[in-house]
Amino acid sequence: MNIVIIGGVAAGAKAAAKIKRLLPDSKVEIYTDDTHVSYSSCGLPYYIEGNFSDYRSLLVRSVEEFKESGIDVYLESKVEKILIPQQQILVAAPDKARLVSYDKLIIATGARPFIPPIKGYENFNNVFTVRKIEDGINIREKMLNSKNAVIIGSGFIGLELLEAFVKNGLEVDLIEKNNRIMSSFDADMSEIIKARLESYHPKTFRFHIGETVSEFFGSNGSLTTVRTLSGKEFNTDMVIICSGIVPNVELARDAGIELGESGAIKVNKIMQTSAPNVYACGDCTEERHIVSGRSAWVPLGSTANKEGRCAAMNAAGIYTEFEGVLGSAVSRCLNTTMSMTGLTELEAVQFGYTPVTAVVSKPDKVAYMPDVGDITLKVIADKVTGLLLGGQAVGSIGADKRINALATALLAHLTVQEFNQNDLTYSPPYSTTIDPLLNAMSILCTKVSRPC
Amino acid sequence: MNIVIIGGVAAGAKAAAKIKRLLPDSKVEIYTDDTHVSYSSCGLPYYIEGNFSDYRSLLVRSVEEFKESGIDVYLESKVEKILIPQQQILVAAPDKARLVSYDKLIIATGARPFIPPIKGYENFNNVFTVRKIEDGINIREKMLNSKNAVIIGSGFIGLELLEAFVKNGLEVDLIEKNNRIMSSFDADMSEIIKARLESYHPKTFRFHIGETVSEFFGSNGSLTTVRTLSGKEFNTDMVIICSGIVPNVELARDAGIELGESGAIKVNKIMQTSAPNVYACGDCTEERHIVSGRSAWVPLGSTANKEGRCAAMNAAGIYTEFEGVLGSAVSRCLNTTMSMTGLTELEAVQFGYTPVTAVVSKPDKVAYMPDVGDITLKVIADKVTGLLLGGQAVGSIGADKRINALATALLAHLTVQEFNQNDLTYSPPYSTTIDPLLNAMSILCTKVSRPC
Repeated sequence: MNIVIIGGVAAGAKAAAKIKRLLPDSKVEIYTDDTHVSYSSCGLPYYIEGNFSDYRSLLVRSVEEFKESGIDVYLESKVEKILIPQQQILVAAPDKARLVSYDKLIIATGARPFIPPIKGYENFNNVFTVRKIEDGINIREKMLNSKNAVIIGSGFIGLELLEAFVKNGLEVDLIEKNNRIMSSFDADMSEIIKARLESYHPKTFRFHIGETVSEFFGSNGSLTTVRTLSGKEFNTDMVIICSGIVPNVELARDAGIELGESGAIKVNKIMQTSAPNVYACGDCTEERHIVSGRSAWVPLGSTANKEGRCAAMNAAGIYTEFEGVLGSAVSRCLNTTMSMTGLTELEAVQFGYTPVTAVVSKPDKVAYMPDVGDITLKVIADKVTGLLLGGQAVGSIGADKRINALATALLAHLTVQEFNQNDLTYSPPYSTTIDPLLNAMSILCTKVSRPC
Repeated sequence: MNIVIIGGVAAGAKAAAKIKRLLPDSKVEIYTDDTHVSYSSCGLPYYIEGNFSDYRSLLVRSVEEFKESGIDVYLESKVEKILIPQQQILVAAPDKARLVSYDKLIIATGARPFIPPIKGYENFNNVFTVRKIEDGINIREKMLNSKNAVIIGSGFIGLELLEAFVKNGLEVDLIEKNNRIMSSFDADMSEIIKARLESYHPKTFRFHIGETVSEFFGSNGSLTTVRTLSGKEFNTDMVIICSGIVPNVELARDAGIELGESGAIKVNKIMQTSAPNVYACGDCTEERHIVSGRSAWVPLGSTANKEGRCAAMNAAGIYTEFEGVLGSAVSRCLNTTMSMTGLTELEAVQFGYTPVTAVVSKPDKVAYMPDVGDITLKVIADKVTGLLLGGQAVGSIGADKRINALATALLAHLTVQEFNQNDLTYSPPYSTTIDPLLNAMSILCTKVSRPC
């Protein structure tokens, strides 16, 4: 059996390794236009920050390691076309183009940075995005010779870069087109994140909210000034565009493979696309949201790994379902941990629920203990049924601890009333006597229609 | 309405405060033989260690604060008898005995240290137990003038005291009668705890396993030597007995109130005892174990708070169920976090399950990050159904993080197969790409009878 995988960062690499273990006699090949394979893209901000010194720490498996386990990796080999009826792909390898046949094809083409329409974008060598190993190397090198930077976008990646630059002594202007930072969180939690970050010392950064970057200026290939629609100008040594990502679906779409509502590749529960013998997984693929039951696109490394594994198992003939995602995520910026799972209050309204919420601010351990941190926890439930819908946590390093308990509750479709009976661990160094999650449930019990 | 509460540490204090808020016009009285009311007993080891300097930090509400909210607290007032038919209690107050009438009685008499049969126990002033505020004050004072100590028992409290003494420069001999330390965990996890603790520097302590203390020796009221059954002798400046606790049920039992299988007071789901208008809550009370469905006695501060609240609500006429406990607990000793929930493997066998287990050892974040800790996680499931039964985590500070997610799964009666679809948060500073919980589930999927 010939198994061909397009893309080899997380989902593709995982799928290749898994399928080779399941079918040792099969031929497994990875084709990628990238210069590296099997790496932790999520770790790039921490490499840039200098949390570790060798970018090769980000590499999970090398081409040689793949080779040793019988998997051929073709780097810098762009797949130009998928020919569904012929079960072939057209590869533009560095030397010459060729056709490769497959019995099973796994599309793991990932996603790429979204570039907003900015005049002059293509002209400058000190404008970066953060996606590939080279991006990390280039940004770190430039950062070490810079005094200041502009970051465009304040999502997870934008804020991770903010930490990296501030910790390396740069002055940073972060420009956000929305009217608040970190807009994947609800507005009230965005404000808490902003206030918390702004309490950081030394505060060598400024947020510019509701500003849309319209134009880059510079000379000799080097950007010097960023201008916004409102006419503000920022002189800077470097610019990082962190305005989100878009799925790489062109290859699939051109082959007639169906896309989902989100624009990512549509798959069923066993990761099959609409084309025979073609699977998709990772950041190019649409998921089902376990809470809403609707299609969603939540491109994250942990999900890519799981989907890669699931696609490989099914391609190998072992029926395995992937239920979907909860949208669980966590990130750190300076003094602040931000974590979330499930639906936001806004999404809950959009999906037809009548959300009620509880926001609890508490110390992260008993207040008499040393090194007490803080946690602000928001929990969202449906008023009518009491069904838990989602939650967000912001605070010191341990603030994410509650989100995985809440994610588990969402997976189990628990109600507020049911979760209120939870027995969570308590000891003075680890929690308050009543965990913030249970404080939130107590409040929600008074707000939902069905009594607790 | 006259509401009388016997005992005022956690459950009693919580019940009093809650019922007064629900029924502002009621008369609420707390009777206790203690010299303090409403305090964090769980915090005593951290006070002894010196994590904070004023023992008053442990006091949650003072007698004066109770008074202000309309609750009368009678300290050093031992209740001698409950007269069920008369709805009265007999109180031996410091001045003189008296009878107090109640409409509703809440028994929150707590628990006391279990004292093993040791010859000479009653003779010495440098032998301590850890339960009340005075115990903490006395132990800390003695510790500051001691060079070494003997701890008898290696459960949560014994190990918390070990930390306190080691951090204060004492040499410590810890004597454990079982053949392993921390025997509320499974044997394999006990070994991991022991090995981890023994890697601590400076290691100024020794474990003596399988040794039963038989006799104390000393002179002039001061103990100097501890002898074990096997004839070993330990010279020491002080001894702490941490051999577990027993529920204070004598008052209830003498009044004809039914006790449960565990020996603690039996209550129904709304915290009613077998006697009319009498409720019980806190460490003196038996619980239902949510996983096994059987009676259990898991005396912990967080549960005491919840039971106190539940008893108060029902006594006030608001029907509220308390479902039970999962046995979730966490504690710290030196470099080691220990946390557990649900049934151990041993308990699972005792209760008729056919347990399968997965033990996973992983870094607590992506290995290329700085300050990487470790976590060893054991998850237990039923082979036949795949039902999750329990789990234990040992490792660096964040090792408890997974236990609350697992507790939530136990509450929801999830199977291994269901949990395996969980979407847990991932980011390099917070977790490995695949969370150890999901690694454990993958392993268990291969061991349970129903395929994943």
